[in-house]
Amino acid sequence: MQTPSGLVTLLTDFGLGDPFVGVMKGVLLGTDQRLRIIDLSHGIKPGGISEGAFWLECSYRYFPAGTVHCAVVDPGVGSARKAVAVAAEHHFFVGPDNGLLAEVTLHAPHVEVREINLGKHGLLGASNTFHGRDIFAVVAGRLAAGQLTFADVGALVHLDVPSPIPGVVTEADGFVGNVLTVDRFGNVITSLRASEVLPAQGAGFHVAIAGKRYRSVRTYADAEPGELVALVGSFGAVELAVRDGSACDRLQPVPGASVKLFPS
Amino acid sequence: MQTPSGLVTLLTDFGLGDPFVGVMKGVLLGTDQRLRIIDLSHGIKPGGISEGAFWLECSYRYFPAGTVHCAVVDPGVGSARKAVAVAAEHHFFVGPDNGLLAEVTLHAPHVEVREINLGKHGLLGASNTFHGRDIFAVVAGRLAAGQLTFADVGALVHLDVPSPIPGVVTEADGFVGNVLTVDRFGNVITSLRASEVLPAQGAGFHVAIAGKRYRSVRTYADAEPGELVALVGSFGAVELAVRDGSACDRLQPVPGASVKLFPS
Amino acid sequence: MQTPSGLVTLLTDFGLGDPFVGVMKGVLLGTDQRLRIIDLSHGIKPGGISEGAFWLECSYRYFPAGTVHCAVVDPGVGSARKAVAVAAEHHFFVGPDNGLLAEVTLHAPHVEVREINLGKHGLLGASNTFHGRDIFAVVAGRLAAGQLTFADVGALVHLDVPSPIPGVVTEADGFVGNVLTVDRFGNVITSLRASEVLPAQGAGFHVAIAGKRYRSVRTYADAEPGELVALVGSFGAVELAVRDGSACDRLQPVPGASVKLFPS
Repeated sequence: MQTPSGLVTLLTDFGLGDPFVGVMKGVLLGTDQRLRIIDLSHGIKPGGISEGAFWLECSYRYFPAGTVHCAVVDPGVGSARKAVAVAAEHHFFVGPDNGLLAEVTLHAPHVEVREINLGKHGLLGASNTFHGRDIFAVVAGRLAAGQLTFADVGALVHLDVPSPIPGVVTEADGFVGNVLTVDRFGNVITSLRASEVLPAQGAGFHVAIAGKRYRSVRTYADAEPGELVALVGSFGAVELAVRDGSACDRLQPVPGASVKLFPS
Repeated sequence: MQTPSGLVTLLTDFGLGDPFVGVMKGVLLGTDQRLRIIDLSHGIKPGGISEGAFWLECSYRYFPAGTVHCAVVDPGVGSARKAVAVAAEHHFFVGPDNGLLAEVTLHAPHVEVREINLGKHGLLGASNTFHGRDIFAVVAGRLAAGQLTFADVGALVHLDVPSPIPGVVTEADGFVGNVLTVDRFGNVITSLRASEVLPAQGAGFHVAIAGKRYRSVRTYADAEPGELVALVGSFGAVELAVRDGSACDRLQPVPGASVKLFPS
Repeated sequence: MQTPSGLVTLLTDFGLGDPFVGVMKGVLLGTDQRLRIIDLSHGIKPGGISEGAFWLECSYRYFPAGTVHCAVVDPGVGSARKAVAVAAEHHFFVGPDNGLLAEVTLHAPHVEVREINLGKHGLLGASNTFHGRDIFAVVAGRLAAGQLTFADVGALVHLDVPSPIPGVVTEADGFVGNVLTVDRFGNVITSLRASEVLPAQGAGFHVAIAGKRYRSVRTYADAEPGELVALVGSFGAVELAVRDGSACDRLQPVPGASVKLFPS
């Protein structure tokens, strides 16, 4: 198994306004001051498990093998949900078993999941409301620093909670997915992965949402100014975009709204 | 006295939209490129000294001993207020003497405060509007890098400005405190510290705010969906919360609003 | 020529809500895990090339010589605009040739610009929508890590796109510039640089905007509470400010609005 490299990423719904993320970093550095810590995102909407699961799955592979990804979107903190660590594709993941880590395991061929043994690791005194600081940062830090092997984390288990992202439905004339999230530029990102719904890289298609169809382009600059188009975004997901504008403002989609792709 | 460890935290009201924080980090690394810098928070509301003082006091202890905390919420920049450094509880603090560091000194048994000797340290040419960059980052960096001992900072002084957070008032049937701030999740955080107002960890209580009383729970998940409850938050302060919702939206409290706790 | 120091800054319009910046850091650390990465700003408004160019030029000199500044405000990503690297004043810059790097070159005496040779560096497979990750982070990382010399980047060229910030116009009784941006505190920042329009540091002046004139002060604390004043900000640009308030709320200026400075 891969050796952790001393690099930790953080993905949370904590925002950066309060010092919650800063304090998690203090705890991480308390395990070993040489750890390097990178923010993946703290802008997941509060309680947005499916959004967090999506971004984690499509982001982690851009980090070096051996990175420990500590992910905390945890509306059930203090309830009975498990705390787990996952090893997959030469990366490690630490977080709650509530679906947040499920997208990673779904798309990786070899996965090991272990329940964090709170008693063994002296973590039974954790607060009831901030496991990111009191459990997940401690375990992620010790794992990244090599103070704890993955096998030491706890017993092998299966994730209790499956992926929060509904699967793609294949129909006679196309594929039906869902709106997952909207990015900073107003691009509407869907659960349709190009690798699963397009016959080849660069293949053309149309996307229907809210009763209207839109053509695909290769990049934003290929759209007419103000045109609403579909394209394959930089993480391989089909998205809707407006050149020099916001597809979100135009479509005002609700998360989970249905989206259908028609191959050209 | 503790030796600085090369770790610096930053807490400001600068936000992250402009490059003010980035430039402070450039100056810090200009003193020693090996310094490690962690953002505690830059989301303190502009000029929010009491909010900054609260978060600083309840956050710093999660960092390793020897950390230098550089705190800049400084609406009086360019006026006659002192620039100071504080040593307390094996940590160091650098910032303006305007109340921002007072909460730390109030709750620590042994405290040393020194006025930054601007002339001695070549800092008389500082800008009139950005002492975070021109004074505090320089002193914090030199201190953290071991280029400057704490005694070298300047003469021993007392803080001029006391804590901006009003004390808790003890009444016959309970304790009266204030609303301090609201976090990302809409939780309303008060100046009532569990360690000062509750007889034991886990003891039940009620909280009255704006003429209504709310029961306490142990964690968010113990509340009914949509119920407004009180609980002891992860930093030991009494707060008001709504499960899967926002206590701020429901209560719309003004900062400083009165809050009373009744032990059960 | 300066040797890169292993320090990389990032300036983008990506915001911090999505993991775009985090993923760029993953790619940077994939070139060399010892790189140190600092966020200059990710709050440039989407597509705000002139705002980014301004902040980059006035920020970079606060970092140690040898820093590599990776700047990505790139609304034309996927179109024919060049990808370039710039060496100026012992610093390095990597980004699109769309005006973003032009302010730096305009104010530096010795400048070298090289077009990134995508084929030579194995970057022809870049996505069409995220060159920050697929081109600029890779080149910035290799440059900062010393895996690539500046001369190896590609052929010497001139920037195609000039500065997006209009020059200052000298009139008989003063200087006319423009509103560039607004900072977190509501200060309205103009293109008038004190070093170019004032006879000496500390010289008094008036500023006219939207038909009204305002006096200058030395620092915020010198204004009357609520008074709208002009002053030289901490980066040397003339700005309009309200003590304990927001000049932006009062003036509601549009970017590019005309501003005239009258020396006293």
